[in-house]
Amino acid sequence: MTDNAFEKSSITLLGLGAMGAAFARTWLAAGHPLTVWNRTPARAEPLVAEGAKLAGTAAEAVAASDLVAVCLLDDASVGEALADADLTGKDLVNLTTGTPAQGRARAEWAEGRGARFLDGGIMAVPPMIGVPDSGAYVFYSGSRALFDARQGELAVPAGTVYVGEDPGYAALHDVALLSAMTGMFSGVAHAFALVRGEKDVSPKEFAPLLVGWLTAMAPYVYGVADHLESGDYTRGVTSNLAMMVQANGTLLRTAEDQGVGTELLTPFMGLMERRLADGHGDEGVTGVIDLLAR
Amino acid sequence: MTDNAFEKSSITLLGLGAMGAAFARTWLAAGHPLTVWNRTPARAEPLVAEGAKLAGTAAEAVAASDLVAVCLLDDASVGEALADADLTGKDLVNLTTGTPAQGRARAEWAEGRGARFLDGGIMAVPPMIGVPDSGAYVFYSGSRALFDARQGELAVPAGTVYVGEDPGYAALHDVALLSAMTGMFSGVAHAFALVRGEKDVSPKEFAPLLVGWLTAMAPYVYGVADHLESGDYTRGVTSNLAMMVQANGTLLRTAEDQGVGTELLTPFMGLMERRLADGHGDEGVTGVIDLLAR
Repeated sequence: MTDNAFEKSSITLLGLGAMGAAFARTWLAAGHPLTVWNRTPARAEPLVAEGAKLAGTAAEAVAASDLVAVCLLDDASVGEALADADLTGKDLVNLTTGTPAQGRARAEWAEGRGARFLDGGIMAVPPMIGVPDSGAYVFYSGSRALFDARQGELAVPAGTVYVGEDPGYAALHDVALLSAMTGMFSGVAHAFALVRGEKDVSPKEFAPLLVGWLTAMAPYVYGVADHLESGDYTRGVTSNLAMMVQANGTLLRTAEDQGVGTELLTPFMGLMERRLADGHGDEGVTGVIDLLAR
Repeated sequence: MTDNAFEKSSITLLGLGAMGAAFARTWLAAGHPLTVWNRTPARAEPLVAEGAKLAGTAAEAVAASDLVAVCLLDDASVGEALADADLTGKDLVNLTTGTPAQGRARAEWAEGRGARFLDGGIMAVPPMIGVPDSGAYVFYSGSRALFDARQGELAVPAGTVYVGEDPGYAALHDVALLSAMTGMFSGVAHAFALVRGEKDVSPKEFAPLLVGWLTAMAPYVYGVADHLESGDYTRGVTSNLAMMVQANGTLLRTAEDQGVGTELLTPFMGLMERRLADGHGDEGVTGVIDLLAR
């Protein structure tokens, strides 16, 4: 360990895509000696100009620091890049996007090679990294000891949210939130498709109404959590499944009248109808979650 | 006109479901003489105890006030209830949920019978009505003269947002926002389904992360509006379609690993892939909207 109270710890970063480069810049700017490696070395040039040291191989880069962050294309790339590296005694932080299963397998692999391992799920786009109050944060899971020891370094590029010892949990949280966002974006796309043909509705006037509405409705999530915790899916319901299914007819007819495909709405509506047919008209929509389990 | 500066205008309300009753209570509480009618008269009893006058027929109720609000089950019920009423000189405000086409046809029908007409789309559930700062509001479209003349009365139960002379626009805005919410709720259901089998992830701990993320991502809508206004779907894109489609694979594999059906995600992902295949990998997801038009 070359770290002491008077100098910043050195950090190694593998992978200089847009996200990796953004992380690299914030650590350099904070005064951490930084060693980088990238499959295509030319991408390191701007960072070298800012003070980073470019290693010739991933193994050399790993040897340069006790804290090694990896931000590559996918999990397979992590295995390839680290194949020849000596991980003994290293703190390995994997910022590469993957599934929970990949995070768990990579943790076992890293620990078997003598490293402490933390998996990360980045909840941000590159321009948010290192920007105070951008809201950017990273889910971390795996070694609590690593997280506690390295929180100072990890907190430089973005906020940190530790979600458990299970190394799959960072990816699970990441994927769950991205999946929810995918649903929200699909709803947004449908909404804009409905109004775009109308000459007297401008997207710019419609946008704040849509943002306000989605923001106001997001806390509905707390009601779902309460249903799942209590097992009572009727608690606090003000607009029940029977009413919502009836309203769905108006939504579908309007889409047809406006010449907009209904494929983004019908799968969820179909699950609502199944739950209603099962006799749960007095519930909210929480019961749909039961139907999603295979 | 019995209205003058010293007494509140009288109002007639047809339809005392949960929403109609909530509107009625706020007008009564604000001191407006209120005449009500409901197909099932017994539902009026609590309101009569609070000072409302119960009319024997819808036609009698309409005759009692110049301002007539209607909040019934559906558009067909509006036509039936008002079949025998004299609408000459009335200000008819239709709060019944319907499609834009129904709003337009009902406006023509009402104007042909001598009334001014305003269609409304209520963006709230009944418990929010009449509650200051609840965020409840109603989209109104149709006669601007009616809206301007009656804004005082209309603003008692909820906020008012006038969206145009086209009487279909209130319903169009209403349906567009509800459709977007349906998408968001489908994403929320999928997200909870992913984590619910994990003993170390509690819904109550997961909920604030999900609410925070959806709230943070909602302003993405402004970028979509900018794309649609400019016709350039690449402006300000930080996570492009090619990257998102790659991430979709991780989302789908995770769902499969967690035993969760993918039917709520795949329609939108399919449109993203079609747009990518058409050569638009450097765009955001706005191009999906082009594919939704029939």
